[in-house]
Amino acid sequence: MFGAFDAAEAAVRPLDEAAMAEARARQGRLSKPRGALGRLEELSVHLAGIAGACPPPVPSPAAVVVFAADHGVVAEGVTPWPQEVTAQMVANIVAGGAAINVLARAAGASVMVVDVGVATPLPDACDGAPGFLSLPLGPGTANLAEEPAMDLATCRAALDVGAQLAQQFGGYGARALVTGEMGIGNSTSAATLVAALTQRPAIEVTGRGAGVDDAGLIHKAAVVERALRRHSAAIVAGPLETLAALGGFEIAALAGFVVGGAAAGVPVVIDGLIANAAVLAAEWLVPGVAAHCIAGHRSSEPGAAAVLEDLNMEPVLDLDLRLGEGTGACLALPILEAAARVLTEMATFDAAGVTDKDA
Amino acid sequence: MFGAFDAAEAAVRPLDEAAMAEARARQGRLSKPRGALGRLEELSVHLAGIAGACPPPVPSPAAVVVFAADHGVVAEGVTPWPQEVTAQMVANIVAGGAAINVLARAAGASVMVVDVGVATPLPDACDGAPGFLSLPLGPGTANLAEEPAMDLATCRAALDVGAQLAQQFGGYGARALVTGEMGIGNSTSAATLVAALTQRPAIEVTGRGAGVDDAGLIHKAAVVERALRRHSAAIVAGPLETLAALGGFEIAALAGFVVGGAAAGVPVVIDGLIANAAVLAAEWLVPGVAAHCIAGHRSSEPGAAAVLEDLNMEPVLDLDLRLGEGTGACLALPILEAAARVLTEMATFDAAGVTDKDA
Repeated sequence: MFGAFDAAEAAVRPLDEAAMAEARARQGRLSKPRGALGRLEELSVHLAGIAGACPPPVPSPAAVVVFAADHGVVAEGVTPWPQEVTAQMVANIVAGGAAINVLARAAGASVMVVDVGVATPLPDACDGAPGFLSLPLGPGTANLAEEPAMDLATCRAALDVGAQLAQQFGGYGARALVTGEMGIGNSTSAATLVAALTQRPAIEVTGRGAGVDDAGLIHKAAVVERALRRHSAAIVAGPLETLAALGGFEIAALAGFVVGGAAAGVPVVIDGLIANAAVLAAEWLVPGVAAHCIAGHRSSEPGAAAVLEDLNMEPVLDLDLRLGEGTGACLALPILEAAARVLTEMATFDAAGVTDKDA
Repeated sequence: MFGAFDAAEAAVRPLDEAAMAEARARQGRLSKPRGALGRLEELSVHLAGIAGACPPPVPSPAAVVVFAADHGVVAEGVTPWPQEVTAQMVANIVAGGAAINVLARAAGASVMVVDVGVATPLPDACDGAPGFLSLPLGPGTANLAEEPAMDLATCRAALDVGAQLAQQFGGYGARALVTGEMGIGNSTSAATLVAALTQRPAIEVTGRGAGVDDAGLIHKAAVVERALRRHSAAIVAGPLETLAALGGFEIAALAGFVVGGAAAGVPVVIDGLIANAAVLAAEWLVPGVAAHCIAGHRSSEPGAAAVLEDLNMEPVLDLDLRLGEGTGACLALPILEAAARVLTEMATFDAAGVTDKDA
């Protein structure tokens, strides 16, 4: 197989050090005390490194791609939400009424929902709707507490779907990509992946997801731990085997999406736990790819914080969000746009006729 | 005297509890797990309380008002920047090349610069330029290390200027007000005010401002401490006396601006140290007025953190900024806009046909 994912993997380059040095030097000439814009300056340098240009293109408009799928692990009672909610929320997003729609509109970003494996029937209104793609890889994953969530071929297919969409959106003019997802049960899959790939105990990376109570949290962590033991051979075998055993269709697609975005030279803005798990898997598959990502926010899910720590990613926002869908990443988009525009639009000391104390 | 400030003071009301309760209830019906949007939900409730309406108006467009003035305390050698930089930066902002211009444009906000007492001549280009107002209260303040920065009548006049402009901008359709400022030496004045009004030691609230080195920081804290001792009688006399003795024209104008914005029912988005000092003075003058403010960011200046702590204000962003001008507040505007739009635009569980686990 030589699919979209393999092609993207081959095209990923390190960050452009020359562009980053040029951005740093330019920040030093702009009419403000050096370093006074803090993280905004660092973000502008990062964007230059991702784009391989200084100044980097303003990362707007962005495209939010919401990969939606169901999870066999819901059979373990890991969430109080019925599985039908995945399909209902897909319809809600297609209709424009979900949180991700509101926050994307506010940021001037588009939203595309991709069904990569929703288990229950979608309403007819989704069929052929703009902003909806049907590329199902199956009727939800198998129950990862009992068997591999998917086989290796399906996992590769999901990686290809994600990589191909990222490259298409990049080619169609998206200046930033936002990782979106929807899938009842996916915080259990993501926590299991994070535990496996960061070698942390289940209880440290398992959170409340869309809202389990204390007893539910302990049960969820126990399911995660059981899955880790059952799939220990897959975890030892490698990241593709781990992703297939423990992931979801949407998580594997997001891992491909990250690699595709990096290959296209477009910043990939990362949301919460599910996206963090996908980036972590992507980094294991294609070392260096996470450098092309920007963590939009620090989710209140403990597994998300674990990934950010291990990948040394400092999130832009910390607003105690735990919704997913891509919402936290969308909220960070205006900050990234501002960072790029500072580099492009601000006057230098010389041009503005302002005395530079350090000149 | 019954000026704009007194009129505004009389018009300030507590936050509207009914509107806030309605916003909280509505957040509970929106198609997402309860509380999953974290701070964004709290901000939407706060905006409803400020506006006295649910849903609150979307706080866009915003108006940034940059009050500019000079400070006699620069005679103490508290900053490495020459005093001329205040006038030069006013010209830079009027020409659209400063950081605040870039960040305001990115947020769809307007920028108005108000000369309330710049000491050195402004370039001719400022004269009559759109986005520039000349309302000088004097050629900079007196040296607060030696004498009161201004007399009480001038302080009242500065409060009136700020209150009047806030009410005018509110009346002209600004849906949010952003506190801007420019003034070489003003971080010394602000730190002194914060030390006086929070009863903290000088060294705890004195920071590097636009960039003093270690020796400069110690000297600056010593100047702050000397000023606190010299003006101990004014500090005991009351907040107006304290503001006159230790403030700057732009800081007093910002205090009036905060009260004027609160009176107009418009959220006032607060920037860093200088604005924090002004809000603190405003709260002492008009108890309850700070509730109408939203802290845009946590500046890396220690005096700013002290004010946020004492006023129990949780900032929206924490990006290690220390520039001032209004930049950190501007960066928070899209987050506030998003918070209000969630309340207005998101579908409820019922409307979206999504099963609510808690219904």
